[in-house]
Amino acid sequence: MALEYPYFLINFKTATETIGEEGLALARTIERVRDETGCRFVVAPQLTDLRLVAERTALPVVAQAATLAENAVMGEPTYEAVAAAGADGVFINHPQNEATFADVARAVDRCADRGLESIVCVNSREQGRAALTFDPDCLLFERPDDIASESGMVRTHPERIAAFVDMVDAENPHTRVFVGGGIRTAADVEQAFACGVDAAGAASAALEAPDRAAWLESITRGVVDASEETRG
Amino acid sequence: MALEYPYFLINFKTATETIGEEGLALARTIERVRDETGCRFVVAPQLTDLRLVAERTALPVVAQAATLAENAVMGEPTYEAVAAAGADGVFINHPQNEATFADVARAVDRCADRGLESIVCVNSREQGRAALTFDPDCLLFERPDDIASESGMVRTHPERIAAFVDMVDAENPHTRVFVGGGIRTAADVEQAFACGVDAAGAASAALEAPDRAAWLESITRGVVDASEETRG
Amino acid sequence: MALEYPYFLINFKTATETIGEEGLALARTIERVRDETGCRFVVAPQLTDLRLVAERTALPVVAQAATLAENAVMGEPTYEAVAAAGADGVFINHPQNEATFADVARAVDRCADRGLESIVCVNSREQGRAALTFDPDCLLFERPDDIASESGMVRTHPERIAAFVDMVDAENPHTRVFVGGGIRTAADVEQAFACGVDAAGAASAALEAPDRAAWLESITRGVVDASEETRG
Amino acid sequence: MALEYPYFLINFKTATETIGEEGLALARTIERVRDETGCRFVVAPQLTDLRLVAERTALPVVAQAATLAENAVMGEPTYEAVAAAGADGVFINHPQNEATFADVARAVDRCADRGLESIVCVNSREQGRAALTFDPDCLLFERPDDIASESGMVRTHPERIAAFVDMVDAENPHTRVFVGGGIRTAADVEQAFACGVDAAGAASAALEAPDRAAWLESITRGVVDASEETRG
Repeated sequence: MALEYPYFLINFKTATETIGEEGLALARTIERVRDETGCRFVVAPQLTDLRLVAERTALPVVAQAATLAENAVMGEPTYEAVAAAGADGVFINHPQNEATFADVARAVDRCADRGLESIVCVNSREQGRAALTFDPDCLLFERPDDIASESGMVRTHPERIAAFVDMVDAENPHTRVFVGGGIRTAADVEQAFACGVDAAGAASAALEAPDRAAWLESITRGVVDASEETRG
Repeated sequence: MALEYPYFLINFKTATETIGEEGLALARTIERVRDETGCRFVVAPQLTDLRLVAERTALPVVAQAATLAENAVMGEPTYEAVAAAGADGVFINHPQNEATFADVARAVDRCADRGLESIVCVNSREQGRAALTFDPDCLLFERPDDIASESGMVRTHPERIAAFVDMVDAENPHTRVFVGGGIRTAADVEQAFACGVDAAGAASAALEAPDRAAWLESITRGVVDASEETRG
Repeated sequence: MALEYPYFLINFKTATETIGEEGLALARTIERVRDETGCRFVVAPQLTDLRLVAERTALPVVAQAATLAENAVMGEPTYEAVAAAGADGVFINHPQNEATFADVARAVDRCADRGLESIVCVNSREQGRAALTFDPDCLLFERPDDIASESGMVRTHPERIAAFVDMVDAENPHTRVFVGGGIRTAADVEQAFACGVDAAGAASAALEAPDRAAWLESITRGVVDASEETRG
Repeated sequence: MALEYPYFLINFKTATETIGEEGLALARTIERVRDETGCRFVVAPQLTDLRLVAERTALPVVAQAATLAENAVMGEPTYEAVAAAGADGVFINHPQNEATFADVARAVDRCADRGLESIVCVNSREQGRAALTFDPDCLLFERPDDIASESGMVRTHPERIAAFVDMVDAENPHTRVFVGGGIRTAADVEQAFACGVDAAGAASAALEAPDRAAWLESITRGVVDASEETRG
């Protein structure tokens, strides 16, 4: 396991305003809020900036995606390449870059071999149960429709998140649960951690905030509180 | 046009032995041979190492691939991202990462907008004629079967390369011609430039050479000679 | 050339209400309107119904897509398979099933070899010029955004269609021009043919019409009129 | 459950020699051997021939692939379309047409809704366990490398097939096990059923046999014998 929990992850996605120096500036803002508040933050920079952010900040970094070396075509970063660039973990099967069924199992194994935290994305409890048979480090529970939405599951169906956490605790208690999709406010973050998750994250809410530092500070309380209790 | 011709391009592809520090070491070897011989070299490092190689060497760098921002899914570097990381050019429609027909036209335009050399890969004279209607900076003429082969077109059918150059000269004389696929020796390089191309490149031959510096030195003569004459 | 021009094509797409017997019933309605009006109609049924419609009606049929045999994976119908099932033509590079740049050239050749009308879809005059270098039987000029839209190019920019027709006439006069995307009314059809096209088509407008036979009859005048004049 | 077990499935794949009338002739040969021997055969014709084979023979038919309606692009047959054409079952995630992780769960549910036998392909016991959480009707255990091989798992590692059957019996006893990949002779078929599988299949061995009827007859004994015993 390469990441410490709990944490709040900021995903830079492929937005033009998170590229290169702008992405580094965002990462430094996040680092400063972390230092001031003690809230653990993790970032998922653009792949061409992975090393930049890993070298110039002390934040853990997650690769947005990686390709199995045996499948990699020209220009696709492999698990080995993102590890060498400083990644601590990798998103596998993200709803915005889905993996084949066969590759998910291989990717979890590859992460274990390369010292990377495997974060497998699933969209339902049913898919989560299947993914647990691969023994990933972490499951990211997110519905594609919640991405960049104002009505994510954390607001509309928090009981589903709690039920997901219970299912994981029952089936494979050392797998962590991360929730994403539609987390926009401090209340959302508190609600997510109140459901028992080990990590939460956001992309659009952080990127679109008029004052990013203020937004980041506003959400830290939900994360910090959660870190005081231990799950399982 | 962001690249100076003629040049010889070394493509790092997705090989494990060209990742990170090993890729940088290879780039430095190439830079040293360039400094010693005056032969113009260009490199195509792995995307996660683009900035590393661009910042720590004086070599021009070409991105192995890039994705149009409007199509980019999580973890796919856009044209804007590779430009910010230091790329001078981009391979479009490489046989090992093909583009849709509609995207090739858009990608050439995007390169023009972002100051990137557009290098469109084609596998036949017919496809080359079609690509010329998009007015790319350079056409890479390469047959998929020639990649990593001992019997590339430069050995078996140099007249096809010459005919391709003639076609480009007739249709769109300011588009450059790059030839790849199965170039393994100094004689291959000389033959390629004797056919009238503006650039040539290799991947497996360079990576597999027992003494890479020696291999690089051995091929420079073909490139240097060519640079003394001007095409068109 | 396997299809007679002019014609109006009804595309069944993948809608549930055009599957099997329902698709055949729609085809028979189209056939009846054809017999009553003399307007030439062509249909693009679902691939699993290609033979059904080809055998049980006298309408020419176009395959919505086909795969090059050398690329075909399990369950993908090849050009040979759609020809055997009765197809007279094939859509290549449809905006809802795009082809790679390299495959477009091969697909046009494959159609020629198999006696199939090659209908290459392009979204711009620039892409049209490139496609003409492959010498297709027909170019379908359609913008993805116009599909199922109320504001297709035929309404908003008919001059672009006319300019496209002029470009094709100048470059490759024996290639036919087909226009689609947002054609919903008799006036749209008349406008399209007034721009000089050889064929037009619709999907959603035909499928959503409360009375399909009435809708079909309403549009025939625009097509019939066009057939009385000859292009070029 | 739409298929009766045990059975032996002949997969027509995308071979030119199994298209249309030739495919129907092969299906009729299979039907005749079935009638003569009592051995239950199932066929997986090309998708454009699904209805032809379903209507003109009494053989159960399996669709080589199908697409979820919500994902289907032009020319892709949906589960609804293959059901209407007469399919009794569908291969999901075949190694030659892999599905995303999220789609496998949805596809199993779709089959249940449409009365189709869901046959989920997996390449390992680990992947099999994950697939069982979706409660499919049948798991096809096949390694991609065994396809068209002379050294399939049934010859080299029959104990892995037996262990797979045991795992399925322990986890979800009403899911059936189908084995494929490298089954070429009567001895291979006997060996497969001796490992406890409910179904087996072949493609290249049947298609390449100099006398297909003789080959089919030769393998029936292994299947018939197995049907006399009951699993579980």
